[in-house]
Amino acid sequence: MEFDLIDIIRARTQGARKDVALGIGDDAALLDVPPGKRLVACTDTLVEGVHFLRGTTAGDVGWKALAVNLSDLAAMGAEPAWALLALTLPDADARFVEGFAGGFAELARAHGVALVGGDTTQGPLAVTVTALGLVPRDAVLTRAGAHVGDAVFVTGTLGDAAGALRLSLPPPLAGEGAAGGWGLLRQRLHRPEPRLAAGLALRGIASACIDVSDGLLADLGHVCAASGVAAEIDAGALPVSGHLRAAFNADACRGFALAGGDDYELCFTALQERTAEVETAFAQLGLRVARIGRIVAGAGVRVLDADGAVVDTPHAGWEHFGQ
Amino acid sequence: MEFDLIDIIRARTQGARKDVALGIGDDAALLDVPPGKRLVACTDTLVEGVHFLRGTTAGDVGWKALAVNLSDLAAMGAEPAWALLALTLPDADARFVEGFAGGFAELARAHGVALVGGDTTQGPLAVTVTALGLVPRDAVLTRAGAHVGDAVFVTGTLGDAAGALRLSLPPPLAGEGAAGGWGLLRQRLHRPEPRLAAGLALRGIASACIDVSDGLLADLGHVCAASGVAAEIDAGALPVSGHLRAAFNADACRGFALAGGDDYELCFTALQERTAEVETAFAQLGLRVARIGRIVAGAGVRVLDADGAVVDTPHAGWEHFGQ
Repeated sequence: MEFDLIDIIRARTQGARKDVALGIGDDAALLDVPPGKRLVACTDTLVEGVHFLRGTTAGDVGWKALAVNLSDLAAMGAEPAWALLALTLPDADARFVEGFAGGFAELARAHGVALVGGDTTQGPLAVTVTALGLVPRDAVLTRAGAHVGDAVFVTGTLGDAAGALRLSLPPPLAGEGAAGGWGLLRQRLHRPEPRLAAGLALRGIASACIDVSDGLLADLGHVCAASGVAAEIDAGALPVSGHLRAAFNADACRGFALAGGDDYELCFTALQERTAEVETAFAQLGLRVARIGRIVAGAGVRVLDADGAVVDTPHAGWEHFGQ
Repeated sequence: MEFDLIDIIRARTQGARKDVALGIGDDAALLDVPPGKRLVACTDTLVEGVHFLRGTTAGDVGWKALAVNLSDLAAMGAEPAWALLALTLPDADARFVEGFAGGFAELARAHGVALVGGDTTQGPLAVTVTALGLVPRDAVLTRAGAHVGDAVFVTGTLGDAAGALRLSLPPPLAGEGAAGGWGLLRQRLHRPEPRLAAGLALRGIASACIDVSDGLLADLGHVCAASGVAAEIDAGALPVSGHLRAAFNADACRGFALAGGDDYELCFTALQERTAEVETAFAQLGLRVARIGRIVAGAGVRVLDADGAVVDTPHAGWEHFGQ
């Protein structure tokens, strides 16, 4: 079954890159890293029932498996280049393979990513993607550069994916979720958009950056730990979509925005004085950006209300629903 | 659970490489590819019950998950550099994690490989490793370079892993396998040695190369298909270990050597006139090499007996035992 899937995706992403000296079909791929660039590498696995619900469409699984990895590249300020795909399937299901390839290839094409290696095996449904990208030697973004006095920003809106997941799981919500907008929330859960253009725009501007995969509190907590600082978030500044607000009350929205995972937005820090520069850069990208807080001395992440009082946060980390 | 395992392995392979600008702990790793070198990338998954038997020790799983990928790098003539590991475990089993890390790190250290990324997830036991290596721009080995008139060689011995697997599975063998040597056969199945030094030595000598993962007939078939040629194998020249011969009759040994997978030896072609050069190189490595046949015009792989008559081969491809 190996070459069916891999060939289908390869055919759909072919000609994507001239820096693939030898693609799929040999024991390994041969790739050209340009002088002056560093290789950026990451890997992430999606397991059915843990990272996506049983019954998720094959196309959504294919898209998301690549998206979560491209999101990691985005957080480093890297441009994506190549991907390797390991797909484990219970049986050789041609329709699943076709759908998976469609979703994977659609996102790969959108970002000029070439599939250069793959392995398909028999077993419980799971996907591991390794994404490889490139970054100029001195332009990388990391988690470790946040300084006291920096402002904290986040792209897009937070909590949509967690809201969509809540709407997908029993028990049904009483009196909530009736207002529509489910389709767009679902899109956010199943087809997250890796913020690659934002990552590139933040080179030279952001002092630290991470993608919001585990939830804002947890991920900003990683930045604080790596940078040796603390962060304060203004609860009122959290960017929440109209679709989420239409489906949930304000408390639920805030909970999703703070602790819900799977948003794949970028959370970053930059000198407060560079706020206008940040806003101009994102206006050019056509992507929302919100200044949500500040870096302070200490450790950990606190959420403040409009009066500056610390808000209780129920839990700081996103647990995937199967765990 | 993510950082437990990854940190254990990282601690055991730390300081392995100066070309890791940023290792585990951020969204992605940052790696330096030297000028003049190409990046070589491959990925392979092992699933419990498909690629390894239930009950295989954690250390053996860790070793083999890396070994099968390093073997692909060896077949390209690449030097290994970095690896990314995605491990899916049914539960957070500290003993398994410790054992897995031990086997993985032992092989990684032996070949100077740095673990630079990882993901641990909950689910049915499976491991995906992505291996990254380096090769000078014009020194790569591929499957596509075999020419009519080349000789066909194979490193080490063939069929040991398939023999060990047969000894591990019911029904028990009648009158066979009693002669001992099981331990060494099992070692070959569970702790294959990727032929990295051989791959390096074959740069500039071999015209084509592949690793024997699916069985000699299947893998040499891939070389023939990629090169547009056919191959003849002399059945009497197949290198079979004394341990395998002690456990199985001659027919069984030949079957394992031709069609058994998981050997991870290198099968390669070179000009017949370079046979002495090949033999000298392998004598220096202390690794057995056997000239087992020749490249001819046509398509496919034929096995010949001592009289030059074509030997029937029952099946040309190795199916993992769970498929």
